[in-house]
Amino acid sequence: MEQLGRFPVRLALPVQWGEMDAFHHVNNAYYLRWFETARIAYFAKVGVGIELDDSPRLRPILARATIDYRAPVTFPDTVTVEATVKSFGTTSFVMGYRLSSEAQRRVVAEGEAVVVLLDANGEKTKVPDGLRETIVALEAVGA
Amino acid sequence: MEQLGRFPVRLALPVQWGEMDAFHHVNNAYYLRWFETARIAYFAKVGVGIELDDSPRLRPILARATIDYRAPVTFPDTVTVEATVKSFGTTSFVMGYRLSSEAQRRVVAEGEAVVVLLDANGEKTKVPDGLRETIVALEAVGA
Amino acid sequence: MEQLGRFPVRLALPVQWGEMDAFHHVNNAYYLRWFETARIAYFAKVGVGIELDDSPRLRPILARATIDYRAPVTFPDTVTVEATVKSFGTTSFVMGYRLSSEAQRRVVAEGEAVVVLLDANGEKTKVPDGLRETIVALEAVGA
Amino acid sequence: MEQLGRFPVRLALPVQWGEMDAFHHVNNAYYLRWFETARIAYFAKVGVGIELDDSPRLRPILARATIDYRAPVTFPDTVTVEATVKSFGTTSFVMGYRLSSEAQRRVVAEGEAVVVLLDANGEKTKVPDGLRETIVALEAVGA
Repeated sequence: MEQLGRFPVRLALPVQWGEMDAFHHVNNAYYLRWFETARIAYFAKVGVGIELDDSPRLRPILARATIDYRAPVTFPDTVTVEATVKSFGTTSFVMGYRLSSEAQRRVVAEGEAVVVLLDANGEKTKVPDGLRETIVALEAVGA
Repeated sequence: MEQLGRFPVRLALPVQWGEMDAFHHVNNAYYLRWFETARIAYFAKVGVGIELDDSPRLRPILARATIDYRAPVTFPDTVTVEATVKSFGTTSFVMGYRLSSEAQRRVVAEGEAVVVLLDANGEKTKVPDGLRETIVALEAVGA
Repeated sequence: MEQLGRFPVRLALPVQWGEMDAFHHVNNAYYLRWFETARIAYFAKVGVGIELDDSPRLRPILARATIDYRAPVTFPDTVTVEATVKSFGTTSFVMGYRLSSEAQRRVVAEGEAVVVLLDANGEKTKVPDGLRETIVALEAVGA
Repeated sequence: MEQLGRFPVRLALPVQWGEMDAFHHVNNAYYLRWFETARIAYFAKVGVGIELDDSPRLRPILARATIDYRAPVTFPDTVTVEATVKSFGTTSFVMGYRLSSEAQRRVVAEGEAVVVLLDANGEKTKVPDGLRETIVALEAVGA
């Protein structure tokens, strides 16, 4: 049976000083930016259209995002953000994220996103079999 | 019995052009910034310490954030963000957010945050009775 | 003779908490965002194409930006950002910005931008007479 | 004689998808963030106080920033940002920045900042001889 949730995509991102807020921690909103960069990298690996100018056949839309903040992040540090697909729905899938701090040597946040697929008319569309197989194959490599 | 969830805090925020991303929508991360501004405004109204330089007795920490994206927001527009307390835990409370677009005349996102209270030593601490009463009173006004 | 530099465009923008950095001031980068929102509003008033999806005849490009920081800005506050055209070059014009703090009742920053006009082929193009006249007329109203 | 302007500090920063705006280029404001991260790294190397919580003897303030945009940056890419001190004034010094794109293999922006030094009372103060010597030594290494 297919095994998901293995975080096959991983990026290292240096924290920028200006991402800290008045509490001297990276502001909570930037976690979504980091997750997004990992999500886009994942999409690129499985060929989900993020073409901007023409009309992609499939457009992934972020319907829901959740972040669990485990520990604050401060500058200077480098964070590693990992992305995975955890499960499939009919017209959507759930991505998982994991954020680790190099300085703290531990997971500092986890996240989840519900991604809905729209067709060229902006209507919800089934996750194509080909995309599903590509994701399953990528997740297997991530094992 | 106390009635929460009435959104007694409301702010209007003009969308900035640079908050849009390459999909020509406000980037998903800015919703957390808008919610945060409403959360800080709520805290200010109930006297939760967000003093930055000295040692506040109580420090509210964002433990979990959730956003449900209903419809994209584009520039130019003005969004209204509302905040409320939905429920109390022992050492935490749950805030709710509602984001409306003036241009679209509807709710475009909803959100939730779990806020944990830390004491001066950084330990989880009970929601003080006084704070709880102040919040309940503010929510009553919001009705 | 034409009189420029009268700041005919003015916007009020509430400061957001998360725009502050670890020095407890609004981070220096957000001044460019505020100026940009005023610049786009100015462009909209004079009909300079900021259409995103099709091929506008004229595309304004930011070639140079300068900011003079006079005094720090903190949350909560509302800033007023004003934009003007100060002078014309052959294929460019110079915009000026002025940023005022409601809380401090004074100008807290000034800025300048060199905007170059590109044609549909991405080549520098002369500022069209019609655009120049529209700008001069708008600046006259601003007086 | 002392030789400045040799860019002894260099950082590589991956572009994040969400730093792009509706023109599909990294938004002009993020250049200031990149420059700032390089400036803070430079300060750390020469021991200029960026302590946040106590009272540093010297506090560097950004008085003026200038950016020359040479070419747009898009995701995915990694930019290299370099910082240098170009000249000293009595109570200030001028930093220079250079931004290069890995994908484009060229300089895509340059910048300058006037940094003023404040003492513990918030008054402008002379650039200390020791700091000046440390900067000159760092710039020599950068050669």
